This record gives sequence, structure tokens and C-alpha cells, in this order.
Amino acid sequence: MSATLDLNADLAEGFGIWSLTDDDALLDVVTSANVACGFHAGEPATMRRVCAQAVERGVVIGAQVSYRDLAGFGRRFVDADPAELTAELLYQVGALREFARIAGGEVAYLKPHGALYNAVVHHDAQARAVVEAARQAGLPVLGLPGSRLLALAVEAGLTTHAEAFGDRGYTPDGTLVPRSEPGALLPDTDAVVERARRLAADGVIVAVDGTELPMAAASLCLHGDSPGAVASARRVAHALREAGVTLAPFA
Amino acid sequence: MSATLDLNADLAEGFGIWSLTDDDALLDVVTSANVACGFHAGEPATMRRVCAQAVERGVVIGAQVSYRDLAGFGRRFVDADPAELTAELLYQVGALREFARIAGGEVAYLKPHGALYNAVVHHDAQARAVVEAARQAGLPVLGLPGSRLLALAVEAGLTTHAEAFGDRGYTPDGTLVPRSEPGALLPDTDAVVERARRLAADGVIVAVDGTELPMAAASLCLHGDSPGAVASARRVAHALREAGVTLAPFA
Amino acid sequence: MSATLDLNADLAEGFGIWSLTDDDALLDVVTSANVACGFHAGEPATMRRVCAQAVERGVVIGAQVSYRDLAGFGRRFVDADPAELTAELLYQVGALREFARIAGGEVAYLKPHGALYNAVVHHDAQARAVVEAARQAGLPVLGLPGSRLLALAVEAGLTTHAEAFGDRGYTPDGTLVPRSEPGALLPDTDAVVERARRLAADGVIVAVDGTELPMAAASLCLHGDSPGAVASARRVAHALREAGVTLAPFA
Amino acid sequence: MSATLDLNADLAEGFGIWSLTDDDALLDVVTSANVACGFHAGEPATMRRVCAQAVERGVVIGAQVSYRDLAGFGRRFVDADPAELTAELLYQVGALREFARIAGGEVAYLKPHGALYNAVVHHDAQARAVVEAARQAGLPVLGLPGSRLLALAVEAGLTTHAEAFGDRGYTPDGTLVPRSEPGALLPDTDAVVERARRLAADGVIVAVDGTELPMAAASLCLHGDSPGAVASARRVAHALREAGVTLAPFA
Repeated sequence: MSATLDLNADLAEGFGIWSLTDDDALLDVVTSANVACGFHAGEPATMRRVCAQAVERGVVIGAQVSYRDLAGFGRRFVDADPAELTAELLYQVGALREFARIAGGEVAYLKPHGALYNAVVHHDAQARAVVEAARQAGLPVLGLPGSRLLALAVEAGLTTHAEAFGDRGYTPDGTLVPRSEPGALLPDTDAVVERARRLAADGVIVAVDGTELPMAAASLCLHGDSPGAVASARRVAHALREAGVTLAPFA
Repeated sequence: MSATLDLNADLAEGFGIWSLTDDDALLDVVTSANVACGFHAGEPATMRRVCAQAVERGVVIGAQVSYRDLAGFGRRFVDADPAELTAELLYQVGALREFARIAGGEVAYLKPHGALYNAVVHHDAQARAVVEAARQAGLPVLGLPGSRLLALAVEAGLTTHAEAFGDRGYTPDGTLVPRSEPGALLPDTDAVVERARRLAADGVIVAVDGTELPMAAASLCLHGDSPGAVASARRVAHALREAGVTLAPFA
Repeated sequence: MSATLDLNADLAEGFGIWSLTDDDALLDVVTSANVACGFHAGEPATMRRVCAQAVERGVVIGAQVSYRDLAGFGRRFVDADPAELTAELLYQVGALREFARIAGGEVAYLKPHGALYNAVVHHDAQARAVVEAARQAGLPVLGLPGSRLLALAVEAGLTTHAEAFGDRGYTPDGTLVPRSEPGALLPDTDAVVERARRLAADGVIVAVDGTELPMAAASLCLHGDSPGAVASARRVAHALREAGVTLAPFA
Repeated sequence: MSATLDLNADLAEGFGIWSLTDDDALLDVVTSANVACGFHAGEPATMRRVCAQAVERGVVIGAQVSYRDLAGFGRRFVDADPAELTAELLYQVGALREFARIAGGEVAYLKPHGALYNAVVHHDAQARAVVEAARQAGLPVLGLPGSRLLALAVEAGLTTHAEAFGDRGYTPDGTLVPRSEPGALLPDTDAVVERARRLAADGVIVAVDGTELPMAAASLCLHGDSPGAVASARRVAHALREAGVTLAPFA
């Protein structure tokens, strides 16, 4: 069996004295690190440290770009002017690139964070703004399969990568089960492992009703900011390797 | 006569709706632009625009890096930890590099802004932090002749450039006449022109008492944020060209 | 004739080194000052100065509250959680109250700024959040006639005040002519004066097609951030007094 | 025995998604809460919640004011202009007062945070700026015995309160043992309890060499941001009550 899968997680999401993600532990598990770039989290010293650690361990660095919103952790939609948004994203990419370069690595992709991630599933103007930032930066885009973002990125000739969520339930339509409904979260780590194994081996996600959804997702997103996140991520990675899945960066 | 001089000014010092410097007009005059990088001024859209305009006109781009202090415009000394300060400066350099690169140019030097500029004249730990940022970024440093910053940069093997001030009086010791004393400012634009001409032609600055101070300054700093700044800068540039001085970037 | 009108304008809209509104001059004209509270503009020293000047001149102080968005000057809609938004608005009100109290005055009303002002015309949840802030702060609300904000404020038992715009064209429906269409702006100061005079004397606004719209607006909003704003505001105030209109705060 | 002591701790020191202090648990222990006011930590929703909880439990609210420095958690000295600093502190006090008032309480004192706390031990101009803020706000000041801050506050006719540190070693001079030296921290909670008991009962602090230092400190500062902080604080409070010390606010 030659199944391959990338595991990505959001890192560097502290700010100054405050920490959120256990960056050090997660970097031992993931193959791609979405590094916060200072607009929703991630002040410079944290970004530098995470880049250095990622390069040491061969973890690929991606720019996790956001609206300018520290107080809201980038989880509030901001109706930003597209040209200004593009500039704000490029600013973040550039800052991260400096730390990646100094660490001996590079920024390999761009992934929008939080409310921006959700907005560009449908919001055409902001999706275009993100694509424009990726195009000017010369970066592939990591995002949601079926999103406006990925469609526009393909149109623009950019490399795109789709991701699936490790712990979220999917409807038979391929959308996420809303958090308020039963099945929104997978019941346990075993289910996450099985989710990941099927995705890697067969390119399918099993929906809440058992439907097998074809999904060309090269990467599985693990959440790093919940209690038990690290332990769960470790188990997922270990079980996948046991099952013969090669964990490797998509980029 | 083959005298050459660089003219530098601080640009992109607005923020969002607020403007300060007449970037467009000053870019027609200077040969080097110290572009604000977002920590004391200069949000991303402004940085992008100024980089594009600078490249169009052949003006060299420098990173005008600062303490994180929008409310104080970077004019308040901050007793930042040196390692954190280095990271904050690299963050700013990286962000600016993205815009310079997209514009078809590059960041050619680093110049500290405001209170940081003043601090690193004497403050050893912060001067080392700035040198470390320049070293890691691979950038020459522009600063005050005789400053701890330039001495340490030389020790570190960096390229350094010294600047003189176009409109400030110098004591016979080579330091600036304090703003509270007579002679702190040159009386008129003619005096600024003569200052610049002597610097370019003979490598000297004439002090308030007539002493001729040898000064190996490749660049003359013009201030862009006062009323009449643009008109004065234009006259200086024009008069220097008339006097046979070649205006050209040091970098 | 006993017509009375309040003139309000946005003040304290600089930040640190940057200025926008000519606060000093406008305080000689308006009867109510919408003072920025630090989230879109208006750092503490500016707020303090404007409060002191307002109290000296008998100008009423209102809290011009905003989304937290310095970089976008509060002109970007932010999909803030209502409870968090209420807290953010109360924070701003409290800060302004301190300066008003120290100056010997008080905060007499709350007016949302920019994108928040526009949002609460229709956005029910955010309008409720603003009303909740005003209710907890014990403040009247100044806003757009017909807005969700004012309707909900009335329901909540709050005192409300409606305002008309001095320089904007109105459609026969009572909405503003979009800025992209003819008639969006009144042609000259004379037209603004006539607009104001009719509002004060007869309680009507004349729409672009001549329709007389009844409008119970106690206040006329003048813009302070455009070139010529102060001169225009002075002429409006002078002409209104000449026409027998008493200029007096609504609060 | 009628010994009385106040226990104070820094609270509300999270920001948005990030938390630091276990506000809920600490409010069950302390009698005075130094509530962060948004400049080094403590965004509005957190401030509101902590004020409400404090009032419910009869804990006195103080304004823990800081330099504007989220990225550095207010631990970096900022050479702020005194008049601007006073305005920045009043802004914070006012914001907190709104939440205290809404909760049915009031702000009862002002305590500088972090680098500002340390600066005003010696820095005359900034100590005067803090005193000026307290005077204009009409608030007592809580600070270090022997500090310039408390001396100037007394001169200005303000009520002052001195605090001792629960877990720090004191030299025979009454200054703190530097953190780099032996005895900087008390060895265990029992020692902290004994420290507190002697302070409450006899008004003395026992220095590292056994010297008994008279100290008129009405309050003992407990740290809330270390692991085990809450458990330790609970033990201290319990043991003090067992020893007959009445825990009560100084304000």
C-alpha cells in the first residue's frame, strides 16, 4: 500500500505572554505547519521559534494568514476592501518568509485562518483577494474542497491543495455537519484514525450516514488548541503509520 | 567635479486614513526611501504603493524599522528584550521585502526609526539587536556616524552607511546642536544646499562655529513631515544638481 | 420664528501624530461633538483635549463608538459577537466619560461610527448590541431615522435622537442617494444652508426630486474631515443664525 | 487577635481567546482584584465578567493600569511623555469604571502594572504622571513601600496603600532579593503563610537574614499566573483565617 497523507495543524497561535498551541509537541506530529503571522496571533519571536523548529524537523511551513483582529483571534468576518486585504495578506506572508528563510526553510503555501477561511468558501471578492495575494506571493493555496477560493485559485493557474477535517462529521453532500447538530464531531480518536486511513488509502470520506464521499484531499487538518489535542494527534499519526500510510508534506 | 550624494527621507508614514508624508512628491526628489514597515506607521496598502512608486522611479528602498508603537509613532524608547527586538525588526523587514519584490525591487538597507534610532547611538544591547537583525536579514545599515550601531555593524562585518542631517546644526564635536539651543536648525534652504554641497564635494560638514568637520556620510537625510518639506527638498535637489553634484543612491 | 437645530460633527479623529479633523475650529461651530473613543481613532491625549475644549465652549459631548479597527478607521463591517460588541462599546464610553468628567462635563449620548453606524440600520443583532450598550451606560442614542437601531432603542425605553445629513441628497423614500449616483451630494453650501433651514423651521427635508419629506431630526450632521469642511460649517452655522434658527444641543 | 490583611492579585490578564489567570478561582481567595484594563491584557468582555464576579463576591476592584503594550504584556519600560501617560492611564480607569459601575460596584484604587510599577519606584516624571492620573480620577494608589510613587501621592494629598509580596525574599534593607540570587523566592507555601501572618499580626516582614523589617503594608500581593498559584493562594488564605487573621479589603 502506498497511501500518503499530509497532516496539518495551526501553530504559533500564542501572542507574547499568552500561549495556545503546544507548538513543540505538535511539530513532532504534523508534516505541515500553518504558522500564524501576527494578525490574529503569533508575534515575531514565536514565529521565529516555530519556523526554526519546523525546519529542524522537516515540517513544511505554510502562512496562516488572517484578518487584522487580535482581539477576536481572526474569528470575526471583516468586510475588508479586497485590495487592502491582499496587501494585508502579503504583509503577513513576507514577515513569515523572513523567519522561514533565516531558519533555512521557506514558506510553501498559504492558508487563510478562521473567519477568512470561512468567508472565502463563498465570498467571491475576498476569495479573489486571497488568490491575488497567493499569486503575487507565488504560493500554492491550501483550502476547503469545493470552495470559491480553490476554484478561483485554479482559474488563476495556482497550485491548490484541498484538506479534510480530521474530527468533523460530514453530511452526504460533503459539507460539514453544523456544530449544533448530532455527528458534528467524530466520537473518538479511533474514528479519526479510520477517517484518515480511508482518506489516504481510498480517497474517500465517510459521511455521517455512511455515504462514501470521494475527496481529493492531500491533507488532513488536526486541531491543536483543544485539551488532549496533542495526545490525540500523536495517536492518529502513529496509527496511520501502523496502517501503512506514509505521512508526508503535500508541498 | 564628480561629487555624489544620496538623499534619503522617511516615507509611507501614514496609517490607514491618516497621511503624514507626501510620498508621491518626495519620491521625485530622494534617491533612497526609508519606508515605514507598520510598527510606527505604514499599513500594508501604503507600503505596497510606496514600493511600487519607488521602483518606478529608481529610488532605492530601505526598511525603516521601529519599536511597536503606533500611538507614539515610534518616538518613545521601549526597553525591549534584545532577542524580541531582533525578531520584531526582522518581521518588519520581511513584510517590506514582499512589497519590494512584487514591485520588482528589493530592500537595500535597514535604518532604525525615531526612538530606536536615538537609542542605538549609545544603547549597546539594542544596538546589538539591530545589528543582529541586519546580519540575519543580510542588509547594510544606515545610521548616525559615530553611533554604537555603526561601530557594532562594522565589527559584525556588515556594510554600513553614515548619514548627515540636512537641516540640523552641528557642534564642533560633530554632535547635533540640541533643539533647545540657537543654531539647532539651519536658517534657510540656501544653508541646507550649501551644507549638502560641501558634504558631497569635500566630505565636510560646517559646524555652527565654522569648524569644518570631516564626515564620511554618503547620504543626507531630508525631513518630509514638516510644512514646506517638499518644496524645500526640491530646491535642495535642484541646487545640488546645478552645483554639479550627482544625486545617486548609496546602496 | 423659534426653530431650533443641533449641529453635530465627528471630532478627535486623529491618532497620535496623525490628525484628521480640525477639532479646535469645529468646536466653534457645532453644538454637539461626536468624540472618537480610541477604537477607530482618538487616542487618550486627543480625547482629553477635545473634551476640555468642548466643555469650555458649551458643546455637548457624545461617545462616537466604533468597531476595534484603527487600520480601517472603523469603516469595515466586523461581524462581532453581540455580547463582545456591547462590552467593546461600553469600554469606549467609559474611557470617554473619564475625560468628560475631568473636564467638568459629561457624555450625553452615544452615536455609532462608520461601518457600525451603517450596520445597525438593518443588522438586528448588532443594533441590539448597541442598544444594550446604551441602556447599560444610561445614554440616549443618536442615529439614522428609520434605522433598526432607533426602533430598538425606543422599544428599550431609551431616549433617541434622529439626525439628518447636511450635505447628502435624499431620495423621495427618505434614503440617501447612493454616492455613485447624481444628486448624492448637495451642490454647494447654500443648498446645505437651505436644507438645514427647512429642517429646523418646517421639519422637512427636500428630496432630489423636490418631494418634501417630513423628518423629525433634531440634529444635522456636518462632516469635518474634508477640505473646506470648516469654512463650510462656519457658513452654515452663520446663515442659520441669520435666518433665525437657534443652534442648540439636542441633549 | 484582631490582625487584618488584604490579599490582592492581578486578574483579567487574558486577552480574547488567550487566558492567563484563573480569575474565577482567584476571586474566591483575594479581597482586592487588580483588574487589567486592556493596555497590557484584559479586553472588554473579560473586564466586564471579572467586575461582575468581583462585585458578587464582595471583592474590591482596582484599576491595574499599564503602558500600551499588548505584545510585551506591559513588562517593557516605555519612555512615555508624562502628560500622554496620564491620559492613557485615565482612559483605562474610565473604561474599567464603566464595567464596575454596571456590576454595581466601583473602582476603589489604582495600581500600576509591570514595567510601569517598577519604573515609578524611582522615575520621578512617570511617578508624577501616575499620581496625576490618580488625583484626576480621585483614586487611592496601591504601590511599593518607599517608592517615589507613594511619596509623591502622599504629597499630592492622595490616600496611599502599601503592599508586600507574598512569595519574594526581602533584603535587610527592605528591598526585594534579586531574582538571580538565593532567597529570591520563599521556599514553600508555609513560608508564605508565616510571612503573611507576621505582616498582619505584627506589621513586620522577616528578611532573608532574619531581620525583622517594620512594614506598614495593608495588603499582600499574591501572584496568579504561575502553575499552582490558585492552590497556593487558597492555602495561604485558609491558614491566615485559621491563625485568626481577618482577610478584608484595604479600600
